[in-house]
Amino acid sequence: MNLLAKIYVTLKGSVLDPQGAAVTHALHALSYDAVRDVRIGKYMEVTLSATDETQAHELVRGMCERLLTNPVIETYTYELAEVEQ
Amino acid sequence: MNLLAKIYVTLKGSVLDPQGAAVTHALHALSYDAVRDVRIGKYMEVTLSATDETQAHELVRGMCERLLTNPVIETYTYELAEVEQ
Repeated sequence: MNLLAKIYVTLKGSVLDPQGAAVTHALHALSYDAVRDVRIGKYMEVTLSATDETQAHELVRGMCERLLTNPVIETYTYELAEVEQ
Repeated sequence: MNLLAKIYVTLKGSVLDPQGAAVTHALHALSYDAVRDVRIGKYMEVTLSATDETQAHELVRGMCERLLTNPVIETYTYELAEVEQ
């Protein structure tokens, strides 16, 4: 079966986010004063094939922990959905 | 009211994604041969205050189109949810 994993990676709450601070500043400069805070993360779409959902979950967790995220400063969530073809 | 906008930015399908290709290659090097394709996007959490949801939608669309995305090569979706405090 073919699956699409949508992976969302965010910095842990206690970790400083200078990129988010820069975007907040830029939004204020554009008069978006309603903006309180911006946190920047990553979003990844991974297309993969697996024999079943259990194997797919294992694969996605493994690649997140080994390559896609830095578990010291980041957390991740993901969604798995079957796709055609 | 205080709202959290979760914004997902992705490259348009026709746009080459060299970062995604590099990640695909790295995953194959780690023996994740089941991976077919990786597309890398951005994920942003924007906390903002607004008088009502309509104004919040307008604000989020405005900042996405003016600063947060490049409409030539990227598309975006977002979710808005009310938050405490």
